[in-house]
Amino acid sequence: MGSKSERTKERILQEACRLFAQKGFQAVTMTDICEKTGLSRGGLYRYYAGTGQIFSEILLKEYRISDRIDKKECAAVILEDMLEEIRKEILDKQLSLSLAIYEYANLGNEALFQKINENAKKRWISLIRYGIETGEFKEADPQQAAECILYYYQGLRMWSRVIPFEELTAENYVKTIRQMLIKENGKEQEHI
Amino acid sequence: MGSKSERTKERILQEACRLFAQKGFQAVTMTDICEKTGLSRGGLYRYYAGTGQIFSEILLKEYRISDRIDKKECAAVILEDMLEEIRKEILDKQLSLSLAIYEYANLGNEALFQKINENAKKRWISLIRYGIETGEFKEADPQQAAECILYYYQGLRMWSRVIPFEELTAENYVKTIRQMLIKENGKEQEHI
Repeated sequence: MGSKSERTKERILQEACRLFAQKGFQAVTMTDICEKTGLSRGGLYRYYAGTGQIFSEILLKEYRISDRIDKKECAAVILEDMLEEIRKEILDKQLSLSLAIYEYANLGNEALFQKINENAKKRWISLIRYGIETGEFKEADPQQAAECILYYYQGLRMWSRVIPFEELTAENYVKTIRQMLIKENGKEQEHI
Repeated sequence: MGSKSERTKERILQEACRLFAQKGFQAVTMTDICEKTGLSRGGLYRYYAGTGQIFSEILLKEYRISDRIDKKECAAVILEDMLEEIRKEILDKQLSLSLAIYEYANLGNEALFQKINENAKKRWISLIRYGIETGEFKEADPQQAAECILYYYQGLRMWSRVIPFEELTAENYVKTIRQMLIKENGKEQEHI
């Protein structure tokens, strides 16, 4: 697909993401997405067959880290970039997809969610293993740490729709994950 | 209120809780609750004015720990009891109220949710402070640790409705919180 098509797809995904975050999954129609993107129905359907396909693609998009691991970047730097991304997301109540995810899950898309969950877990596990290998991370249990990172994040995303969050809540997330993974240069830890 | 009334209220809350977990908040009516409890409409309305009041009461019910702290029980024992309770809840997909909480929050009950969140945080902070005082817990930042405990749990509860969970996921939660709080007798930690 040419780069113009890629840009159009990107725009569709972005606008649709905003709509799903605002209204949940079921209330969003292809017509809404046409309006927001300025595409004709024919134009939109050239790219996607329906809102379900668009939503799945949004959920399956992921922060790519395998390239960075292959390039042997510092594990701690990759981690900090991911945490910064997450910190911003936590504070951006407008973009929380939790409600839409719930609705979509209730329509019976269990296999998709299992895949998303497995992919996210694998991604974190590969970073944690890599950081342990390079000696930057503590000898944590990769699966255990990955689950804490993911579910703690999901809980925050859910509550960020329900109550207003302080900046501190996002900071504490980042601090907890950092303390869980990063070695403190030879110094015995006092604060976990 | 006499003990028979207390028992009736308890029964109403239990049955209603099951219904909210199954159907979410909005789909449950007072009639449904009458059917499940065997109470007449008049009987039910003697106790509660509507489903909103019942749901709020369920959400505000909490695991009481202040008595146990006053009695100077071991902090580690209180912690283990709370973790065991949580572990069972995580595995009990049927009783997850997350969907109902979402719906109820979307009806605009922000103040209630802030209160619930604050109460839960305070409870955990008081236990963590107490454990640090008795020398059983690490010198963690109580608010930071409390947030991890709560939001990690909420994330698990949300996902437990969406995908099937293995026992290991609940075990990992308990392990992570334990490692975050409990001192390992003088031994340098290798695994966090």
